Parts: sequence; structure tokens; C-alpha cells
Amino acid sequence: MVYINENYLKLKAGYLFPEIARRVAAFAEAHPEARIIRLGIGDVTEPLPSAIVEAMHQAVAEMGRRETFRGYGPEQGYAFLREAIAEHDFRARGADVAPDEIFVSDGSKCDVGNLLDIFDLANRVAVLDPVYPVYVDTNVMAGRTGPADNDGRYPGLVYLSATAENDFQPDLPSEPVDLIYLCYPNNPTGAVASRETLARWVDFALQTGAVILFDAAYEAYIQEPHLPHSIYEIPQARQVAIELRSFSKNAGFTGVRCAYTVVPHSVFGRTRDGQRVPLHALWTRRHTTKFNGVSYIVQRGAAAAYTPEGKQQIGALIDFYMTNARLLREGLTRLGWQVYGGRNAPYLWLKTPGGMSSWQFFDYLLERAHLVGTPGSGFGAAGEGYFRLSAFNSRENILEAVERLAQLPAETAR
Amino acid sequence: MVYINENYLKLKAGYLFPEIARRVAAFAEAHPEARIIRLGIGDVTEPLPSAIVEAMHQAVAEMGRRETFRGYGPEQGYAFLREAIAEHDFRARGADVAPDEIFVSDGSKCDVGNLLDIFDLANRVAVLDPVYPVYVDTNVMAGRTGPADNDGRYPGLVYLSATAENDFQPDLPSEPVDLIYLCYPNNPTGAVASRETLARWVDFALQTGAVILFDAAYEAYIQEPHLPHSIYEIPQARQVAIELRSFSKNAGFTGVRCAYTVVPHSVFGRTRDGQRVPLHALWTRRHTTKFNGVSYIVQRGAAAAYTPEGKQQIGALIDFYMTNARLLREGLTRLGWQVYGGRNAPYLWLKTPGGMSSWQFFDYLLERAHLVGTPGSGFGAAGEGYFRLSAFNSRENILEAVERLAQLPAETAR
Repeated sequence: MVYINENYLKLKAGYLFPEIARRVAAFAEAHPEARIIRLGIGDVTEPLPSAIVEAMHQAVAEMGRRETFRGYGPEQGYAFLREAIAEHDFRARGADVAPDEIFVSDGSKCDVGNLLDIFDLANRVAVLDPVYPVYVDTNVMAGRTGPADNDGRYPGLVYLSATAENDFQPDLPSEPVDLIYLCYPNNPTGAVASRETLARWVDFALQTGAVILFDAAYEAYIQEPHLPHSIYEIPQARQVAIELRSFSKNAGFTGVRCAYTVVPHSVFGRTRDGQRVPLHALWTRRHTTKFNGVSYIVQRGAAAAYTPEGKQQIGALIDFYMTNARLLREGLTRLGWQVYGGRNAPYLWLKTPGGMSSWQFFDYLLERAHLVGTPGSGFGAAGEGYFRLSAFNSRENILEAVERLAQLPAETAR
Repeated sequence: MVYINENYLKLKAGYLFPEIARRVAAFAEAHPEARIIRLGIGDVTEPLPSAIVEAMHQAVAEMGRRETFRGYGPEQGYAFLREAIAEHDFRARGADVAPDEIFVSDGSKCDVGNLLDIFDLANRVAVLDPVYPVYVDTNVMAGRTGPADNDGRYPGLVYLSATAENDFQPDLPSEPVDLIYLCYPNNPTGAVASRETLARWVDFALQTGAVILFDAAYEAYIQEPHLPHSIYEIPQARQVAIELRSFSKNAGFTGVRCAYTVVPHSVFGRTRDGQRVPLHALWTRRHTTKFNGVSYIVQRGAAAAYTPEGKQQIGALIDFYMTNARLLREGLTRLGWQVYGGRNAPYLWLKTPGGMSSWQFFDYLLERAHLVGTPGSGFGAAGEGYFRLSAFNSRENILEAVERLAQLPAETAR
């Protein structure tokens, strides 16, 4: 009988979101009159910008006529999209990225897992804690860890705690690491990285030979002009960093599916006997062998994000969600709660009041205010005692949520 | 410095299609007047059926309105599509497949590579020769082989030769294997599997505990009514087979991107210590962790393939390409050449005339008839002395190609 990849058996059961769904369903059944507002999952709620809708209609029509029909496209993406990305997302910000360093894909979740294919199992991996669970789970599946311990941490990974005590900016690793996952603006904490913070990580990677996997899925939410949007705004990052971007959270593509990964020609790995190999060549081989390109229709939609109309409409979407974030933050702050994030990110990260655990606070909010959020402990051991609220919702629901929070009894609000 | 996956260095350079492109470009430069007809790559040429175009327009419009906008969908695909697939592709043919055994994806090329994630490296892998190169390359990348030998074969894989001598139906493996790739109708040979042939493979897998990866990307081209379209038409296949299907070659989705994989609940693998684990659970975990679903717009387009209009329009597309195949086959047969395939598949597989090697014949056809095909040796050692022609082209080009073939000098045509 065929042997399975036993590393999969080390994974904790898909605990967080199913457990949330279970508790919400039980509450809804017991309280059918309650109008539950969900501020849990980070999914957009507003429709696609009209510039993108028009571009996709046009592309669908092209696919229906013989003269303009397109079959297989380049696996790495069409030149029209790769050139627009290089120009608008990088060169316009002074970052040196060429179109042929951009690999268009159907999602950052896919890319972040697939990137592990090109690296040896012997590499030591560092993640922040709390952390987007896919970084961890894909390393468990690949075989870089043992089974989870009682805190849910996997031996074999290096966890770098990000808590209020260190302003959600962990120290550099004190042990050797080869691959470092960074996510800024951060999911779930909403923390951002200054130019100095990124330069420190780039210097560390240069000195140690590590590679940084930089997840910038939320860069569009950055409001403060001095903050970098791309790690390549630190010029030496071209030697050490791979950057992941997505159209999910700016253009609202969570259901449309388009993202991209930047692998500069100047990032190298090595063989066991010391030969230097460009990661660009390896990723090209991976991407062209195990992927067949993003839908032409979707790529035309993504390219429309860079037109003047597209940019203006996406800007309005970001403003909308960030106004939601401000309203939530102000409401929570009025309660006297400790609130982080929500200034350059669509996530608010709360210290749970009254010393409640993350799950106690989840139950409390659900029962008292009929609000659903995400327990911080679900993102890692260092997230215990924290709670994530998302700004992705209608204005009406956000205002209603703020109103309900204001009605909470005073003893918990302190 | 980070270590790379050195298995990638065992891969032969992406030899076949770049080399074809190089020779065609050199010829075109030397003969700018030549009107080259390309019958090489298996890409569709006709526009999308109007039922599918209309469904995608509708879906694009839904995404532009708040009330009908959709964010993240189920990673495995929307129920409307999984149910249509189960009903029309399987139950209508008497094959027992449930919607929750269907995993919608963005391409069979992706699925065929990604499926290896859930299997242990210790499994022994069998492929037919000639073979779709992705089956081989993804196993090389995963680390199941040594470097290629002089024939381009990788030690560690079991190659089952499919040539005219065995009617392109290889014997069962004479050594133990755990994973078996089968592709019917076959790319590149165009061979088909009878019910008896599939039953023989299913019995073998049942007896040995092997799992069959059954690639049915070309099932829509089957013309003879007694031939099975799905391996699940052999009922016991539910215990041993995973089937891959695609909308690329029936609905013309090579540039739209949609496919699916069937993993029945009843297929098991084992751990090293003998525990049985359902592959469905492992693939669910892989698919939901490293993939985020196919574009809603594309899934609506795929579902339209199952409407009465969609079915009729796809039937007309298949008829068009299969008439091309017949015209080519008749033209080649008139020359006295040995022609296989092209009866239930869009590919013709020729024995090269006059004892030419695959590449000699490539050059001959390019120089004398300005026709481009694919050298059989590019698909594996057993493909040497064969040549693939594709029926995917306009009728005008096919007729012109047949005409040019008829003008070839008699000495080569025998």
C-alpha cells in the first residue's frame, strides 16, 4: 500500500475557525433573535471597483471571439501586468524591480506554501508569534518540525514573540536561521515596520546568509507616508528578500484570485557543497512546471487596478475600510481598552480586558454584544490574551458594533 | 546561506519546447516568406462557447454589486459546480462520485504536481514512456530520482514503454510500484484504454496496494461509445484511483484555468507503522492550506459547460477538432505513413518515415513543408522515432497542412 506523507499527521486539527464557527452556531441556535455581527475573518465586503469590472467584461468578450481568443498564456503572467506592477508598485516608490522578476499567481497563500519547494529541508525557519498559520503549517507539512507541543508550538521552528512588551517588534533571532517570514503591515497584530526596522532585518540577512520571505499583502493600508510599502525600498533587500503581494485586500480580489511574488535575480541559495544558485532560476522552474498561469480575464482585471480610475477607486475602498478601523479603534479606546493596530492595517489587536483569556473574551463578546472576533491565541502562543477585530464590514455594521461595545457594563470595560 | 532543494539541479534543462522555438525562429529568419503552420503545442484555438461567455459576464457583473459580491469561496470549489460535475461527468455514466469528493482547481498541471505532497518519498513511481513530462519532472523535484541518464530517463522511476510493438498498451509493471500515472486518451500517443484495460490496472492496484493517478484531460475526445470516460466506470477503482479532469481541452479553458481532481473517500494510504489514512483527508488539508479556491467568475463559466447549451456548444467544438484530426490522419495515411491516435484524441502519433529520428523528421517537415510538430523523443526514450501532430488549429490551416504534406517528394513518403 502506498505510503502517506506522515508530516501531515503532526498538524493540529484545523482548530481556530471551525471552533469559532461551532461556538457561533451554538449561540445563534440558543438566541435566534440575536443579530450577530462578524468581525472575524479578514475577507473584504465591498464590490469590485468599476474599472476592474469593465476590464474583465472586456476580457470575457475577447475570449468569445476567435480573433482575440487567448489560450495558454505565459506561466509567469502577461507582460502587460508584470510591467504595470513593476512600474506602479516598485519603480514609482524608488524600488528596483524588473518585470521579469515578477511571478503572477492565483494567491499569496499558494505562493507562500509553494515557495518552500525550492528550499532544502535542512534550513532553519523563523516566524513571528503570533503568526499567519499558513507559514507554520506548510513547514510542518514539508517535514521541518516535530509534533506540536502543549502551547501549539512546533519544535524545529524558531518563534519570535511579538507582544505589547516589545511593541510587537521582536528582537533579531539569537540562534542561526536561514528563512525568515516577515509580514508588514502585520496580520494579525496590525504592527508596521519602519524603514529602520526593515533595514535591520536586511542587514541581519546579509550578515547571516538568510533569506527573508516578506509578505506585504496589506501594504495598501499604510497611511503614514514615511513607512515603506516594499522591502525593496531598502536597496540591499534585492540580495536577500522575496516579496509576496496580493490583489485580495486592495482591489478586493479574495474571490477573483490574483497575487504575485517578486524573486530578484540577485538572491542566491547554495548547494551542500557551496555552489551558489540563483533562486530566480529555481522558482522559474517550479512556477512553469507546477503552475499554468492565472486566468487571462483575471489578469486583465488586475492590470486595471493600475489605471488612473482603478487607482482612484481602490483608494476609495481603502479609505472606507480604514474609516471603519478608526471608528472601531475610537470606540474601543473610549472603553479604556488597550488597542493596537488599525492605523496602517485593517486589523485591530486588543489586549483582552480584565485579564480574560482570548477564548474567554471571545465568549464574552459573543454573549454580551453578539460580536464575533478572532481569539489571539489562535495565531500562536504569544497571542494569548489578545483578540483580533477586522475592519472589513459595512459601515452600518461597524457603527452598530461600536454602539454595542459602548453598552457593555462598566466593570468589564475597565 | 540558505540551502536550495538540490533535486532541481537534476532536471534536464527545459529542452523540448525551447529547442523547437529556437529551430523555428532560425528557419523563419532564413525564410521570411515561409508561412509556418504550427501543429506542435496542444493548445486550443477556437473561442469560448457563448453559454460560457454569458455565464462569465453575469458573474463579473455580480462581483461589481455589493448585494451579489463574493469574497473568499470554499477552497474545494462552490457547491453549484461540484454538484454539476458529479451529476454530469460521473453519475450520468454510472460512476459513483459524490460532490464532496471533487476538488476544483486552477489546472491539472498544478494538481498533478501538488498531489505528490501527500505521499511519502519512499513510494515507487511508474510512468508510461512516452509521457507527459510534468509527471516525471515533479517527481524529480520531490527527490524520488537520481540525475537523468543518457536516454533522459531518471533512475528511481519505473518506465513502462508504450510503442507500436505493444499497441501502446504497456504490460503491468514487473517490479513493485506504489504510484502509477495513467493518461487516457493518452498524451502524446492518442491511445485509449478499453474497459478491460482499465479493469486490469485497477485489479493490479487492488492486489498490490498501489494508487493510480488517472489523467483524463482528453476524455471529451472519445468517439467510440464503448470506451470508458472515467476510471470510476470500473467500480472498484473507488478504492485505488484518483482522477484528474480539466476544462482546458473540452471547454477551451487553457487561458481561463479550471480543472478538478476526484479523491474518493475510499482510497487509503498507510503510515510506516501500518495505520490506514484516507487520502481524502490529506488532500483536503493540502488543498485548503496551500490553495484558496478558483475564481468565482471562472467557476460560473465552468458550470455553464453543463447546461444544455454549453454541452451542445462544447460538442460542436470537439467535432470541429476531431474533423481536423480525421483530415490530418487521412492525409498522412495517403502518404503511406504509419499513423496512430487521432480517433479518440486530438493528437496524431506518427512513426517517422524512412527511419528518421524524431528530430530529423522535425527538421524535414519544417524545411520541406513549413510545418511544426513535436518530436516524440521529447516525451521520453520510447518516443524516439515518433512524432506528434496536434489537431488544434483552424480548418484552413489543417487543409493547407494536408495539401503541403501531399506535395512532399515521393521518396520520403514511402
